[in-house]
Amino acid sequence: MFSPRGGKADVEEGLEFSPKFAADGLIPALALDAVTREPLMLAYMNAESLRRTLEIGEAVYWSRSRQEFWHKGATSGHIQRIVEIRTDCDQDALILLVEQLGAGACHTGRESCFYRKVVAAAGGGPAKLAWTGPAKSFDPAAVYGKA
Amino acid sequence: MFSPRGGKADVEEGLEFSPKFAADGLIPALALDAVTREPLMLAYMNAESLRRTLEIGEAVYWSRSRQEFWHKGATSGHIQRIVEIRTDCDQDALILLVEQLGAGACHTGRESCFYRKVVAAAGGGPAKLAWTGPAKSFDPAAVYGKA
Repeated sequence: MFSPRGGKADVEEGLEFSPKFAADGLIPALALDAVTREPLMLAYMNAESLRRTLEIGEAVYWSRSRQEFWHKGATSGHIQRIVEIRTDCDQDALILLVEQLGAGACHTGRESCFYRKVVAAAGGGPAKLAWTGPAKSFDPAAVYGKA
Repeated sequence: MFSPRGGKADVEEGLEFSPKFAADGLIPALALDAVTREPLMLAYMNAESLRRTLEIGEAVYWSRSRQEFWHKGATSGHIQRIVEIRTDCDQDALILLVEQLGAGACHTGRESCFYRKVVAAAGGGPAKLAWTGPAKSFDPAAVYGKA
């Protein structure tokens, strides 16, 4: 499914796909809305979940907390249809340009997981967060069937 | 500089900034062009590089290959001015919305590191890459002083 990794020139300037999985077997994948380019979520894939993603055209991650395949939307209906997958120069990161189905990507009930921004404190105190982006668009308890 | 991590509700719905660094002490940070939303690069920060980033308003990563602080642009002039930093629901990933100075973010001489897309093979063969986005915009040998 994937090509063996060659030298630096091959990895950076070639057209063989040789994704680099970290020591834990995972590669980070950031999902962006393909139209608005809004960042939706960052999750991880192992080789098999990346293979399944390419096969079915929908995002399949590896859940680090549950240690299982995570076909995004299998529970919620909030499928991520793959429009394009990009990799970076050293092929150790992925960008998923997706069509997000349903009300949103985030298990907290929001369109995106990136709903807060960091605000540096004046005078060296601890940095804080502030709300950004839209409020909750769905009720996670209703969608996921748990509080 | 950062607040201790509380329970799930605090981390997800609170306004304390409690970034989660992985076992290796790092958190992934994806830089997006603040205006075009083009994904530029994915790199990592440790707590001190994140602190410095907030302090100076320019992206400071931790180089995993060189094991040293990496003030982006210190060599190339291709500074990333921070417009906004976002974190996600569980505060274990960062999005940097940046103003990219100079000709580009990628050490290969391109605006973005994500210059190739993945093309699934018909019939189960290995997936390939295809060029996407702009060609090289600067000569890395001239900018970085090495071939």
